[in-house]
Amino acid sequence: MRDALVDAALGYTRPDVVIRGGQIINVLTHECYPADVMIKGERIAAVGDSSEYDLGNNCILIDASGEYLSPGFMDPHFHIESSSITVTELAKLIVPRGVTMVAQDPHDFASVLGFKGIELLFQEGHGVPLNFLLRVPGRVPVMNPDSDTAGSTLSMDETKELLGWPEALCLAGDINPVLILQKDQAQYEKIDYTIRQKMTVSGQAPGLKGKELNAFVAAGLEDSHVSASVEEVLDDLRHGLKVLLTHRPTKFMPKDFAKLAAVIRQHGLDTRNILLCTDDTHANQLLKEGHLEYRIKLAIENGIDPITALQMATINVAEFYRITRDYGSISPGKYADIVTLNNLESVKADKVFIHGKLVAENGCLVSPPQKFIYPKFAKQTMHLRHPVEPGDLMIFSERKDQATQDVQVAILGTPKELRIETLSVEGGVIMPDLSRGIVSMAMVERHKATGNVGKGFIEFPLIAGAYASSMSHDSHNIFVIGANFEDMSMAVNRVAMNQGGYVVVKSGKVLSEIEMPIAGLLSEEPFDIVAHKMEEIEFILREELGCTIPYRPFYFLNLFCLPNIPNVGITDKGVISSRLMAPVNIVVQEKD
Amino acid sequence: MRDALVDAALGYTRPDVVIRGGQIINVLTHECYPADVMIKGERIAAVGDSSEYDLGNNCILIDASGEYLSPGFMDPHFHIESSSITVTELAKLIVPRGVTMVAQDPHDFASVLGFKGIELLFQEGHGVPLNFLLRVPGRVPVMNPDSDTAGSTLSMDETKELLGWPEALCLAGDINPVLILQKDQAQYEKIDYTIRQKMTVSGQAPGLKGKELNAFVAAGLEDSHVSASVEEVLDDLRHGLKVLLTHRPTKFMPKDFAKLAAVIRQHGLDTRNILLCTDDTHANQLLKEGHLEYRIKLAIENGIDPITALQMATINVAEFYRITRDYGSISPGKYADIVTLNNLESVKADKVFIHGKLVAENGCLVSPPQKFIYPKFAKQTMHLRHPVEPGDLMIFSERKDQATQDVQVAILGTPKELRIETLSVEGGVIMPDLSRGIVSMAMVERHKATGNVGKGFIEFPLIAGAYASSMSHDSHNIFVIGANFEDMSMAVNRVAMNQGGYVVVKSGKVLSEIEMPIAGLLSEEPFDIVAHKMEEIEFILREELGCTIPYRPFYFLNLFCLPNIPNVGITDKGVISSRLMAPVNIVVQEKD
Repeated sequence: MRDALVDAALGYTRPDVVIRGGQIINVLTHECYPADVMIKGERIAAVGDSSEYDLGNNCILIDASGEYLSPGFMDPHFHIESSSITVTELAKLIVPRGVTMVAQDPHDFASVLGFKGIELLFQEGHGVPLNFLLRVPGRVPVMNPDSDTAGSTLSMDETKELLGWPEALCLAGDINPVLILQKDQAQYEKIDYTIRQKMTVSGQAPGLKGKELNAFVAAGLEDSHVSASVEEVLDDLRHGLKVLLTHRPTKFMPKDFAKLAAVIRQHGLDTRNILLCTDDTHANQLLKEGHLEYRIKLAIENGIDPITALQMATINVAEFYRITRDYGSISPGKYADIVTLNNLESVKADKVFIHGKLVAENGCLVSPPQKFIYPKFAKQTMHLRHPVEPGDLMIFSERKDQATQDVQVAILGTPKELRIETLSVEGGVIMPDLSRGIVSMAMVERHKATGNVGKGFIEFPLIAGAYASSMSHDSHNIFVIGANFEDMSMAVNRVAMNQGGYVVVKSGKVLSEIEMPIAGLLSEEPFDIVAHKMEEIEFILREELGCTIPYRPFYFLNLFCLPNIPNVGITDKGVISSRLMAPVNIVVQEKD
Repeated sequence: MRDALVDAALGYTRPDVVIRGGQIINVLTHECYPADVMIKGERIAAVGDSSEYDLGNNCILIDASGEYLSPGFMDPHFHIESSSITVTELAKLIVPRGVTMVAQDPHDFASVLGFKGIELLFQEGHGVPLNFLLRVPGRVPVMNPDSDTAGSTLSMDETKELLGWPEALCLAGDINPVLILQKDQAQYEKIDYTIRQKMTVSGQAPGLKGKELNAFVAAGLEDSHVSASVEEVLDDLRHGLKVLLTHRPTKFMPKDFAKLAAVIRQHGLDTRNILLCTDDTHANQLLKEGHLEYRIKLAIENGIDPITALQMATINVAEFYRITRDYGSISPGKYADIVTLNNLESVKADKVFIHGKLVAENGCLVSPPQKFIYPKFAKQTMHLRHPVEPGDLMIFSERKDQATQDVQVAILGTPKELRIETLSVEGGVIMPDLSRGIVSMAMVERHKATGNVGKGFIEFPLIAGAYASSMSHDSHNIFVIGANFEDMSMAVNRVAMNQGGYVVVKSGKVLSEIEMPIAGLLSEEPFDIVAHKMEEIEFILREELGCTIPYRPFYFLNLFCLPNIPNVGITDKGVISSRLMAPVNIVVQEKD
């Protein structure tokens, strides 16, 4: 490889591909200037003036006149499971938009299928024109068995084996930071091992401050996502973390990008440790807004200099993962992962090259990959002990004759909290109160047919029907919320019958659904179908179930469960306190 | 380590040292703000408000009110051999100035003593309060045996063994870049090995442009030093190299820093890949000007923002060597290598901490280390075949009866060149011409008693006497230049008798000398004595020998020989073309 590249750079052999006439965006120097790119095999041999090279007749000449050349966009933190589409469909959707690398943390997939599941996902990844790289899940299952029931586990040995894969980038850290602060020795062993491999140790520290933030960084963790505010971004950066940003419905919104842009401009904040990512994004959002290129555009629209924004999605990512030798800049020796842009501000990709090959043009893959066939065991993962009855989802008051009962109701927000509310009791059953926006929720175990059902109440704007899904972090049992127990039980049973997916039910009728048979997490349908169905479900949630969340209701529904994000979640064992990492009794005991 | 740090960060245990009341220079964010540093053992446990911690009675409290706290300065490229002082003396000289790490490439030492020499040097390094880290020499000897005679070699296995040392930072690349361009397979094997170890591959590409620069970077090399101009800096940065800067008498002068500062200000050039270094600097220069802290000051004085300049000597260096987990910033988990500064612009160190210990204060080490005793074999390295006679240093014309002879005279400059001059012949001996500033030079082999003498002429402002030294890159035979052959031979024999060093002779009298018995490269005397003697030699060169070079004549005298720096050098085999890597016949043959 070295010999061939050097020969090509010196002009002793001819380049295979030359992209000429464009303006290079140099993310190393923060400059933009005219230059041609000479490619040999998978890598860039030279950047400069192509007229100095004998191109011969077989060299593929790409005219980039009037265009900008950027390093391919690199997503440092992504979960394909949230998009509900396969890797093949993902490549079709995002590569034409200029994304050439995603760092995938398959902890969701592994929660269902374990090591074998990761193998399958990356077998599919090998067949697509996309650098589908691996963030090795930090802890599967993420909760202790007495707080949650997952479908599978990753052992210490399996974790170490994964870190040795050529695709492996880091030990991922989508785990409860409390484990780090409590010096969980299994986590520390993984950190030590990763450092010995000279690899990145990734983490998340949402909301951590002061002593806890210091301890988190001192423990060796290197990044956090997703900050709630510019203040949190600055606090994390100052303490030595890389900060991964994406906009969220409630957390880091476009206005926060504008605020960050002002800090960069006014105080000369160094941006080398700021990265853009997508994290959990749904297929409809990917299709409507975009993937990483949309975050770049959002940053630019909100006042961040375009080259700085591109650095946040290229070289800064390569530096985070210690892979600058191969990725992140248009310079000799790097993989020729290059995107041509018609216009800098709109971040609109024209042609996309990965490892020297033109893989996408005009919004489409040049050669779409074949559908990858997942084996049967990966598509039959729904195991209920028995069909759920309405009664299985009810919570009972302390005494049957009570008229009311105080309960701890989950409240969305940053952080998620519990608030005591008084609900009415009917025949011993604590009832949701739709007039106050308090609905029932449950998590039905579906991996091991335990029959476990975790139950609670949540403040959520829903006035009819029920919603259920097996996309429910982190163990992906069947999460359901609803206005009545009948619709709720029907929705759960329908998800199970579909081998996973989303279901919306009203008055005993399935109004919309997506089947996601691959691990109960991914659909087998094309990305546009999945995106369309997600749009439909969001429409029905609004129009038929009265859900008034204006933007990305899926986001709230998927991520509410997650017990790692402070301070509350739900598992099949009940409502969980993320601080205690244990179930909470939500029925408030009467004092004597 | 992780557990203890986390406990201290959380306040469960007390910190050992707290530096409080100062302004932190945060090189990660390019900010400066008040914060205290809590240290546990060798590392930083927390950065924040010390009043939140119970400090108890045994914690060492350092009052940094009115001071700035910077990460200790890290020199990414240094050769102790050019300073002529031992590691112990180096620590005394530079640590009180705020330098906490030097990346030492001991290729000079290894040229004399091989692997054993490196072991000795780093044994001494272990005993001093300084991070004395290793750049593993890229090629010893640097030339092929038919072009140069070195005292020792480093085998492939030894090189790989050195890369495994805990002190090792990189494969160093102070070698002829022509080897890289010619695809020298031994060098490529070392590069491959280093990359597999996930370590840095260092190089030098002075003057390379276009295809050659592309090929150099494509081959995997990651940095260059020392650029001749801002144009070269930009060209190197744009092609993906880190650029290591130091001022040189002829190359990158203070005005170039000013020019670079203007580019940074006006074009928003990203500076993350610019580093400051010292490379070859002599003891007197270190004492008069300073070490790395002087380069930081120079950068600031010439218009580079102070925090940006500090980044170039801290975090940028840590990133280059992939050691950000341990070095380069004041943040949790890093070694507590911290310097307090009275004033940002003057870069004047007050207190210096290394690995959590206060090691220097008020310009002095707190506990100066014991002198390290080098064994006999390291101090008896001068082996002439026989004392040098004046006749050994003469060059003869083609025919004895010629009156004149055309010869290729070496010319200092960037690059060094050869120029044909006509010199007079006396009895068959080609004579120097002092009126035109052309003096004789020779390189006398001293490792293996071969009797080899490489000879030539050089344009150098000297009107009397001779100067000789065993500090003569890269093989460190005895280099001599002079106005007459008698003084030259006397100077050479005196250097040999002294077991190495510098000698200035005039009219048969030794006017000044420094004995450097350790490998013929390092003096055993204290740094101030060595510096004083160097000043004396420079004074005598000027006042007695008529040398009109105003600034650092040692620099020219030491580095002229070096055949790796284009385009000319001298070895015991003669005047060498760095392009051909072979001797050149300097006596111009008459055409028929």
